This record gives sequence, C-alpha cells and structure tokens, in this order.
Amino acid sequence: VITMEKVNLRDKLALFSDLWTPKIVGELNGQQVKLVKLRGEFTWHHHAQEDELFLVLRGALSIHLRDRVVELREGEFLIVPKGVEHKPIAVDEAHVLLLEPASTLNTGNVRSERTVDRPERI
Amino acid sequence: VITMEKVNLRDKLALFSDLWTPKIVGELNGQQVKLVKLRGEFTWHHHAQEDELFLVLRGALSIHLRDRVVELREGEFLIVPKGVEHKPIAVDEAHVLLLEPASTLNTGNVRSERTVDRPERI
Repeated sequence: VITMEKVNLRDKLALFSDLWTPKIVGELNGQQVKLVKLRGEFTWHHHAQEDELFLVLRGALSIHLRDRVVELREGEFLIVPKGVEHKPIAVDEAHVLLLEPASTLNTGNVRSERTVDRPERI
Repeated sequence: VITMEKVNLRDKLALFSDLWTPKIVGELNGQQVKLVKLRGEFTWHHHAQEDELFLVLRGALSIHLRDRVVELREGEFLIVPKGVEHKPIAVDEAHVLLLEPASTLNTGNVRSERTVDRPERI
C-alpha cells in the first residue's frame, strides 16, 4: 500500500524501542523503507535474492563482512549485494534506515528467534 | 554496478553544486539512490511507471500536487506514486536524496532543457 503522507523519521523512531525488529515506514516499486534500532551483535546471514541498504541515522554501525569490516557513522550508507554474508554490530544503540525488497527476511538464510516474519508498519 | 564501498552523504554532496541534476550514488535491486540540489521551481511532471521517494537532507522542499502541497523539512520524506503529477519547489537551496528505479527520467513525461538523460555517477 502506497500512502501519500509524508514521513518524519524522528517521529517514527519515537514510536518504538524494541531492538532488531525492523518497522516498515514506506513502500515503493516493490521495495520497503524500514527503520530499525540496533544494539549488540546480530547473526551472520545473507539474502539470496535481495540487495540491502543500511543508512545510519543515529549512532554508529559496524557491518562485518567475511573479509573486512565497514564502519558506518551518521549520514553514511552501505549496500550489501545479494549473496554476501554480513553481520551488523552496534556497540551503542544505533538507528538505521533499511531499504530492501518487500520479500526480505531480516535474518536472511538463517532462521532464529530474531527472525521477524511480518514486520509491523508504523 | 554495485560497489561495496560505503557512501558518506555529506562528502558526496560536496562534490557538486549544479542544481536540478541528480547524481547517482548507489544502486540496488534495480533502483538508484541519487542526490540532488534544488533551488527554485521545477516543472509539473509525472512518472508513468516509477514511484519516487524524496528525502530532505538539508533545507526544505515543497512538493506541489494537483490538490495540495506537502512541505518537507530535514529528515522527512514523501513517496510520490507513479502517475501522480508533482512539482518540487525549494525557496532556498535544498539537498535531497532520491530513490527511484534506474529507468526514471528526472522530468518524467515532460522533456525540457532540464531533462538529464544520463545522470552522472559520483
């Protein structure tokens, strides 16, 4: 569903505090814009079919890849292509905008207690 | 082409000063992330096939629609669905992140001297 209401990122981030649970805040062209709050270490995973963009809105995020680590700060983004294993780590709480196809599962190929099958729309 | 280098939005914005000429800074899932600097009034247009997201990074942007105006400030975005006529206006210079399919022409259905057929990658 595409709505034509503007979205204020700060207002949306104020609506939730749970970690590692992406919330949908926009949809276009089969893609979803999500917001997520992160702290700690996620699991290694990849997405078989989906490229994924991480844009840091607040704090800092380390995207671990198998051969290196990309350190993202506010106003920086990284696109992780499909098939590439990655593990996000945030020492302190970080707020991140995700852009990815609607089909994307947050834990990719690895089902765990952190898997969010139906992300909430806020 | 998908690269795995991080992108710093502020650094990219410092690379150009021309107005109304979107620059490609990222690609994923057939979509492009673009940066554009705007000041003044654009032309009415629509995109027949493409939904378009406008996220204001600096300044303010008015998206005129046929029935209303949406005022965007820093940290706010609007998704304009395909087929919907719109006209961006920025009184002062605004810096905007665009997200749209790679096929998107900046002036949509209206060819003019502002049409950018092959946006630069920076």
